[in-house]
Amino acid sequence: MNYQNFFTGALDDLRDQGNYRVFADLERHCGSFPKATARGADVANVTIWCSNDYLGMGQHPSVLGAMHDALDRCGAGAGGTRNISGTTHDHVLLEAELADLHGKEAALLFTSGYVSNWAALGTLAGRIPDCVVLSDALNHASMIEGIRHSKAERMIWKHNDLEDLEAKLAALPLDRPKLIAFESVYSMDGDIAPIREICDLADKYNAMTYLDEVHAVGLYGPRGGGIAEREGLMDRLTVIEGTLGKAFGVMGGYIAASAALCDFIRSFASGFIFTTALPPAVAAGAAASIRHLKASRAERDLQKAKVTEVRARLEALGIPHVDNPSHIIPVMVGDPVKCKYISDVLLKEYGIYIQPINYPTVPKGTERLRITPSPVHTAEDIDHLVGALGQLWEYCQLARMPLAAQ
Amino acid sequence: MNYQNFFTGALDDLRDQGNYRVFADLERHCGSFPKATARGADVANVTIWCSNDYLGMGQHPSVLGAMHDALDRCGAGAGGTRNISGTTHDHVLLEAELADLHGKEAALLFTSGYVSNWAALGTLAGRIPDCVVLSDALNHASMIEGIRHSKAERMIWKHNDLEDLEAKLAALPLDRPKLIAFESVYSMDGDIAPIREICDLADKYNAMTYLDEVHAVGLYGPRGGGIAEREGLMDRLTVIEGTLGKAFGVMGGYIAASAALCDFIRSFASGFIFTTALPPAVAAGAAASIRHLKASRAERDLQKAKVTEVRARLEALGIPHVDNPSHIIPVMVGDPVKCKYISDVLLKEYGIYIQPINYPTVPKGTERLRITPSPVHTAEDIDHLVGALGQLWEYCQLARMPLAAQ
Repeated sequence: MNYQNFFTGALDDLRDQGNYRVFADLERHCGSFPKATARGADVANVTIWCSNDYLGMGQHPSVLGAMHDALDRCGAGAGGTRNISGTTHDHVLLEAELADLHGKEAALLFTSGYVSNWAALGTLAGRIPDCVVLSDALNHASMIEGIRHSKAERMIWKHNDLEDLEAKLAALPLDRPKLIAFESVYSMDGDIAPIREICDLADKYNAMTYLDEVHAVGLYGPRGGGIAEREGLMDRLTVIEGTLGKAFGVMGGYIAASAALCDFIRSFASGFIFTTALPPAVAAGAAASIRHLKASRAERDLQKAKVTEVRARLEALGIPHVDNPSHIIPVMVGDPVKCKYISDVLLKEYGIYIQPINYPTVPKGTERLRITPSPVHTAEDIDHLVGALGQLWEYCQLARMPLAAQ
Repeated sequence: MNYQNFFTGALDDLRDQGNYRVFADLERHCGSFPKATARGADVANVTIWCSNDYLGMGQHPSVLGAMHDALDRCGAGAGGTRNISGTTHDHVLLEAELADLHGKEAALLFTSGYVSNWAALGTLAGRIPDCVVLSDALNHASMIEGIRHSKAERMIWKHNDLEDLEAKLAALPLDRPKLIAFESVYSMDGDIAPIREICDLADKYNAMTYLDEVHAVGLYGPRGGGIAEREGLMDRLTVIEGTLGKAFGVMGGYIAASAALCDFIRSFASGFIFTTALPPAVAAGAAASIRHLKASRAERDLQKAKVTEVRARLEALGIPHVDNPSHIIPVMVGDPVKCKYISDVLLKEYGIYIQPINYPTVPKGTERLRITPSPVHTAEDIDHLVGALGQLWEYCQLARMPLAAQ
């Protein structure tokens, strides 16, 4: 066995398939985000159009102020796991802020959204005797890994398909423990789950519900509590899971649920127990961001306006994009090599940074450019983006959708 | 199925066994660490004696300066996964710093040490066909979960036992892929692995080696590269894994290895690909900490002196502690309820914070107080600690070891 040859061979295969990833090396410019400098890309200044810092909160003065302050008060790292000297008052305050955001008794922090899904689903489904997990077919990798980790029986229901979900629930004994795991906004297609109907089914068949709102928290609902808040459904969900690293602009993940459920995960989840806590400054920054977005809807309103405008302009040009009710605009290319080529040209010739989304993030044949307009993109940014895409679609002779105007 | 009752019942069981964990709510005082305020503990000021911020780097001016600067330059969060807009120049520089620290071609960042072990071991052992993992019996939970995640065959060898390891290696076909996974400093006992001899066996039987140095990086070796650096063995290890959240004082984890191996993990590890990158400020702070500890041995020397002094003082009083060659001093209590009681009294009556270490972190019957002296503990701190432990051992009539002086 030659290990080195094995690694290089596997990487060559990725390159041959067009799925080898090259990371853009960026310097974000705080205060002028979405502008950044791309290193080694023959282009000085770029505009980022694919960030999950959806509202630009990563440069908000109250977030940065809270982080500077916490650094000066408490220092850099937490210095330990939550149990062994790593719980600071900033963590306690942030958990209270999150419980309040979702109208739940408690919340529990993790080092990332990935870890929160992996640890919470893994522990719930793994520790509840004979639990079966009903998992939406398009659930995120972190949920899939958590369910796999639990070793519980898993039934995959067709994406957002209530009929299929009910058929699977009805086939199970009523008193058998069940957990329905799904997302509100699906990241790559931007479609939204029928949360109310799923909760109705959960009640009917005595199932718990686990809702991933990572692409919705901060963005939807009167206080940024997510789609479940907007629909008035937060109290009907057993667990709401979210992230502090997207619309809240910092880092970390969490669940919000009953005090007993959070305490159960706190007490049994390996991925929670055996890891260093988030830095106090990260916790303080996230709490400031949540507080701001609870009170202010200006960022959400402006984001919606920008999304609507970009969508209409793409529509007018016939650039094919997935129609959905969220803030995510997937422009479909359908080929990994073309997708990467377009992305490269956008970066080098137009100073527009949109990472190509290829397999395994999306299924093969559905490669895309995923555009996320934000309140900090200007009218000029939008003109430049739409103009560039129009020229590239012309130049590359890419398929257009039937023009709306014709 | 009543889910709520299930959760509360499981928590009651933990309480009955004395294994329910209560987190101390601390406010670290930057600039005067290990001092902190403990909220809700009837005591204003405490001295932390159980932090993994082993050298106090979490309050080092160069670390805090780099973090403040990166916040002002780049903002709070990375805004995306490493692939989708989340790679900033601070990440690139930190990976170069880590590769240099360990004398390897490359390094790869993760959001935590836990995730680095889980993702790297899970991917290596899972993707290399027919790989078998030879895992030390006392490996950390994150390594165990990573190996389990890989679904590869696992053979557990007796802790630090070369004979047992060789017997297991010799029983396998020479050309079958093998990965020996172990730690340098074991966190809870503070003992150190025979790295050289393990590398000899790896060479003899054509195995890869994966060394977890999370409790050693920053602390050992002329530049803080860990035990493998101290012993001149870094080039003999396939993978060195470390953390940025202990001696380096910030947050995050990493591996250092060949460029092809790091690229392989980067390209295939779900726990790397599908998670938001570390905040640029965290990366910048960690890089500053590493740079400082590469050049300065003052912190390491002072820590060694404090460890030696605490150890000698405990010895003189006959307080039972594990003798080991590292900076970790486990004071053995051997009962979860007593261990928690002593910890509570230390906090409330002496202002000394040492979290009780109970199951599942250590085996039942080996409950302990794990003391980690640092360069920032003063002579008065040590006097106060040793005095308090002496009084408590007297008061609780706890077993003492034969006094060295008698």
